[in-house]
Amino acid sequence: MTLEYDGSGYHGWQRQKNGRSIQEVLEERIAVITGEPIKVIGSGRTDAGVHALGQVAHFQTSCGIPAGNLLKGINSLLPADIVVKSLDDAPPGFHARIDARRKTYLYRIYNGATPTALYRRSVWQVYGPLDTVAMRAAAAHLLGRHDFTSFCTVHTDAVSFTREIYRLEISAVACDPGLFLEIEVEADGFLRYMVRTIVGTLVEIGRGKRPAAEMGEILRGRNRDRAGMTAPPQGLFLKEVRY
Amino acid sequence: MTLEYDGSGYHGWQRQKNGRSIQEVLEERIAVITGEPIKVIGSGRTDAGVHALGQVAHFQTSCGIPAGNLLKGINSLLPADIVVKSLDDAPPGFHARIDARRKTYLYRIYNGATPTALYRRSVWQVYGPLDTVAMRAAAAHLLGRHDFTSFCTVHTDAVSFTREIYRLEISAVACDPGLFLEIEVEADGFLRYMVRTIVGTLVEIGRGKRPAAEMGEILRGRNRDRAGMTAPPQGLFLKEVRY
Repeated sequence: MTLEYDGSGYHGWQRQKNGRSIQEVLEERIAVITGEPIKVIGSGRTDAGVHALGQVAHFQTSCGIPAGNLLKGINSLLPADIVVKSLDDAPPGFHARIDARRKTYLYRIYNGATPTALYRRSVWQVYGPLDTVAMRAAAAHLLGRHDFTSFCTVHTDAVSFTREIYRLEISAVACDPGLFLEIEVEADGFLRYMVRTIVGTLVEIGRGKRPAAEMGEILRGRNRDRAGMTAPPQGLFLKEVRY
Repeated sequence: MTLEYDGSGYHGWQRQKNGRSIQEVLEERIAVITGEPIKVIGSGRTDAGVHALGQVAHFQTSCGIPAGNLLKGINSLLPADIVVKSLDDAPPGFHARIDARRKTYLYRIYNGATPTALYRRSVWQVYGPLDTVAMRAAAAHLLGRHDFTSFCTVHTDAVSFTREIYRLEISAVACDPGLFLEIEVEADGFLRYMVRTIVGTLVEIGRGKRPAAEMGEILRGRNRDRAGMTAPPQGLFLKEVRY
């Protein structure tokens, strides 16, 4: 199934002791329909406050309800901030996490002169001019296959820090009520906080606090202390997972 | 001052006994800065759940704080769902409601196949195909100076029902996670529920439940029962007020 969710009210994707998670709510509500305990496996975790436009997840059931009816039934029971966009029978042995080949994340920055009331839960509000030419020059250093240790939190259980970024696009979008900057990153996988640390570093470069060329040095340094701040979660959207 | 607000958490613009209003919150917070009771006058009311991208309001103060500092001070005290976008000294005798010459409202419809989690507080979710050609043909009947009794709630204290619509545009906007329809209406003023009743009627026409030509008959009928449903408040934004 493909999922859209507003992560504002959740402690992230993964089930945990303190606070509601997307996974937990899905498992509870789907179990009401299927009449059996349900384990939902996502393509990966999203952190607290992070949203999804196209998270993918799978679950096993022997309930026999046709996919179309199951989709309607689950949506009728879900809270308004989680929606199943599509649901289909998976090929035998399909695994939402293991089989994921590419993911695309979108990060939204609001670059107005004053705060935004309407978009406060879905953007990072950055004030002052941002040099998008410098940001794009810096982003070019990250394209391709690299060790991204510098852009990963030290609190990780990752074994390999090598990932391949296929695409990293920065677009200015003029829209009510101001200027948005959209940063889209497509890769074969992401380390924890990787997109948010890339975005935080790009913004420091956009503000002129670091030169664009420093991005290559940060990458080669393989040290989290070299990179910039971690951008806040509410601007981040898991946009697409490809198999 | 120009204001942006997310109306989701308020009982509308106007101060009232049951529940918080935008006006009340502004008056309370501004008074903290100015140290004197404040009366905030808006360009007009917005109903419960309706948002603003560019509401205009004025207040009188003898506090002597320069406009730029006042703007920062007020924003620092306001909740995150109300933002003062700009604040300037007004010309002598300026009145935000009486002097308003034109207003623009924006109405956003989400026309996806499944509900949207991320935009649920800022769109009307309409399922199934909408015939935008028919909607535009119907909208053309409303342009110009007319008696809009058919598009006004019967619960009104309006004296005249004549308004002039300068512009009524319907645009399809393809965007994540689906198709949006934006309806923008510019007029010399609006009756209560006027935009929402126009939108509700346009959607019935877009769904093929009424022919486009019926819009002219509804207008000439001068009877609220002739028009369609009132579209829900959360899709409506007061976009601009001109003086």
